[in-house]
Amino acid sequence: MELAQIFKSQGTLEHKELVFLGRVRSNRQGKVVSFMILNDGTTINDLQVVYKTTTNGFEEGLKARVSSIVEVTGTIVLTPGKQQPFEMQATKIELLDQAIEDYPLQKKEHSSEFLREIAHLRARTKTFNAIFRIRSTAAFALHKFFQEKDFIYVQTPIITSNDAEGAGEQFVVTVNEDKDYANDFFAKKAALTVSGQLNAEAFAQAFKNTYTFGPTFRAENSHTNRHASEFWMLEPEVAFNDLAKNIILIEDMLKSTVSYVMEKNIEELKFLESNLEAGLIDKISKIVNSEFKTMKYEEVLKVLQKAIDNGHQFEDNNIYFGLDLGTEHERYICEVVNKCPTFVIDYPKEIKAFYMKQNSDGKTVAAVDLLVPGIGELIGGSQREDNTDKIKERCIEIGINPNDLEWYISLRDYGYYKSAGFGLGFERLLMYITGASNIRDVIPFPRTPKNLLF
Amino acid sequence: MELAQIFKSQGTLEHKELVFLGRVRSNRQGKVVSFMILNDGTTINDLQVVYKTTTNGFEEGLKARVSSIVEVTGTIVLTPGKQQPFEMQATKIELLDQAIEDYPLQKKEHSSEFLREIAHLRARTKTFNAIFRIRSTAAFALHKFFQEKDFIYVQTPIITSNDAEGAGEQFVVTVNEDKDYANDFFAKKAALTVSGQLNAEAFAQAFKNTYTFGPTFRAENSHTNRHASEFWMLEPEVAFNDLAKNIILIEDMLKSTVSYVMEKNIEELKFLESNLEAGLIDKISKIVNSEFKTMKYEEVLKVLQKAIDNGHQFEDNNIYFGLDLGTEHERYICEVVNKCPTFVIDYPKEIKAFYMKQNSDGKTVAAVDLLVPGIGELIGGSQREDNTDKIKERCIEIGINPNDLEWYISLRDYGYYKSAGFGLGFERLLMYITGASNIRDVIPFPRTPKNLLF
Repeated sequence: MELAQIFKSQGTLEHKELVFLGRVRSNRQGKVVSFMILNDGTTINDLQVVYKTTTNGFEEGLKARVSSIVEVTGTIVLTPGKQQPFEMQATKIELLDQAIEDYPLQKKEHSSEFLREIAHLRARTKTFNAIFRIRSTAAFALHKFFQEKDFIYVQTPIITSNDAEGAGEQFVVTVNEDKDYANDFFAKKAALTVSGQLNAEAFAQAFKNTYTFGPTFRAENSHTNRHASEFWMLEPEVAFNDLAKNIILIEDMLKSTVSYVMEKNIEELKFLESNLEAGLIDKISKIVNSEFKTMKYEEVLKVLQKAIDNGHQFEDNNIYFGLDLGTEHERYICEVVNKCPTFVIDYPKEIKAFYMKQNSDGKTVAAVDLLVPGIGELIGGSQREDNTDKIKERCIEIGINPNDLEWYISLRDYGYYKSAGFGLGFERLLMYITGASNIRDVIPFPRTPKNLLF
Repeated sequence: MELAQIFKSQGTLEHKELVFLGRVRSNRQGKVVSFMILNDGTTINDLQVVYKTTTNGFEEGLKARVSSIVEVTGTIVLTPGKQQPFEMQATKIELLDQAIEDYPLQKKEHSSEFLREIAHLRARTKTFNAIFRIRSTAAFALHKFFQEKDFIYVQTPIITSNDAEGAGEQFVVTVNEDKDYANDFFAKKAALTVSGQLNAEAFAQAFKNTYTFGPTFRAENSHTNRHASEFWMLEPEVAFNDLAKNIILIEDMLKSTVSYVMEKNIEELKFLESNLEAGLIDKISKIVNSEFKTMKYEEVLKVLQKAIDNGHQFEDNNIYFGLDLGTEHERYICEVVNKCPTFVIDYPKEIKAFYMKQNSDGKTVAAVDLLVPGIGELIGGSQREDNTDKIKERCIEIGINPNDLEWYISLRDYGYYKSAGFGLGFERLLMYITGASNIRDVIPFPRTPKNLLF
């Protein structure tokens, strides 16, 4: 029986004989009885096995090193008042596979840095086990949210010739590596996608409600704890939606996802709260329970300026229209001013992407960023520009040749009435939910500059 | 109100006034009344709008070209006995965005080849709308199946330095394109993954039940209707599982997925049955309702040889131990011999991957292929080799340096007792379920040699 199942049915299992197959987390000989802590990976909780000289296979059991695989036959005994709710009293132990002596994960504290070097093993620690369990749940929660609303999941392409952001920091995909693209695999320059949004927008014109969720890439030589070269993005897109409807969708999605994780992984969250971030559960509960507020960018500037005038010091006190808000400004707005997640809308067009709809004021776009306490920006989105001439103009202004995106821009010629969507950096959300402070610790096998292991 | 919702609630909507926003599929003026066929993308079924000279906005309505966006106010009238179950009698029509005259998708038959050239628009046709709806449902059905069994979804890396198959047909990922890998982004040669299995195996040792589901890549210069350069693979992996349990998992997963699609997308399947493949629903029902059989590879050879002796002609009549079964052989086994999906197990080790467990006969491995009527092999899997020496030997035999996979092979040193898994080519399954005969038609934006559009 799997350990998760034993925990679920513990009440009905008392004095029942079970067979359990698991990995040794620790094993110590006592004077009267010996103790083996086992886990099979199906829960972060462990099974304590008690065995004695009279246990069939006692000698073999004693020999079992950390990480070895054993099969234990025994009975479940409830142990109310003790640290664990029950234990297994072994009648038989079989050592199925002995681990080598220098297994790197002995029972002691390891640094995150060391554990990243053994990413093929670190998910066996309770911290990473909890984090990657939550990652799995959160990914499914997002799918579930959109599927229950009948959104169509479109797997947008990874290899692309578009540069959605005009950022230029793309990996090249090639078979020849000689920059002779006409003779390369795709007969043109190919790169790894930075976003599935443009393709998702085409699908939104066919299905109304769509989302893409997949890996995206940046060849950015950043060594911060918030940048990785490969990460997952969720990008919903809804035809006929305006910015207001987009905002409602973001709030619904976030509340639904966090609440699903809290329901499924409360034990993991409790463990992470004790080990990674104090107050974690309270912090994420506020996402579920707060009313989110909305402020215009220009209103935000006024509030920041007023704070400075009243003596508040930011690292950057130079507040002006056109400023790309820093994390300190974002956090001040949602933590100090509103004390809740806050949508900021109508940013200056110069600091936002070319595809965002220009507002009638001639200087702002229908963009939205969601700021959350603790980190600042979590999600960014917009209503899309519907005017062909305006979008071409913006392309040229930022150095994209509109002909390279002709297929995308032309969507506006074939009957187009509003479209809005947003992007959620999945790892950003996971860092927020798990309390992990480094993006490398929420990605199973992270890729960063000069780092390509496993 | 969305069209899908109108179809669901049609019984309660009679004579109610509604506002509907959608795209024009066709528009024709009649002598007494005019007809507009609209769709908003939320269902493959269309809405027929009837309007007259007395309708507010009649002239504007008449002008609306194919693909334009209109907003219609009107009442729902049930039309039992007619082709559509209800229609909308318009009181007001507003033309929100007029499409240009030469919209490529006019109301006529288009070839699949032509539609591939306009992949940004083809999802608006009923055939592709149905296919990509099913793609979305099937992807979710797979997630749902594994999540309900508490499998952990691990997003394995796309950029890799492993070559899981030893096949060598990988795309290179680079920023410098000068083959000076030491000075490239990752300070070593990087490629796009051909499989997430090796990484998933590491996670299975931590969680027992895991799966990965994501894009994989082959730089293969193939121009068949079954090869694409970018496609999605589902790869479950379960620690402690042997081949027999692996087989049970495959059967459960496939039945559950097909049956979920039949429940959610029966209208789409009916449409595809009429337009792409006669007998489609009956064919896929058999996946759900058949008992699958299991045969050993050597037994299969005997049956094939006997068929030949009795006069059956294969294109390849040379049956010998070591033969990589052709599709004709596979289909003969499941269509003629067993008349049901058939697992073939214990293949010669020479024709299978290096990580498959060698059987005690010294010549076969614990591999399994699932053959299904109509196409042959749909899924391939195996129990994994647990013996470090044997797996290293096989690496060397096929030209992989075991040191390059040291992290993977070393999993066997740290307590390892069986592991088994399989790979499902997601597009292969979709071609089977939808009746599409070309892989390019089940991928939203397909990538093939010399073809990188959108």
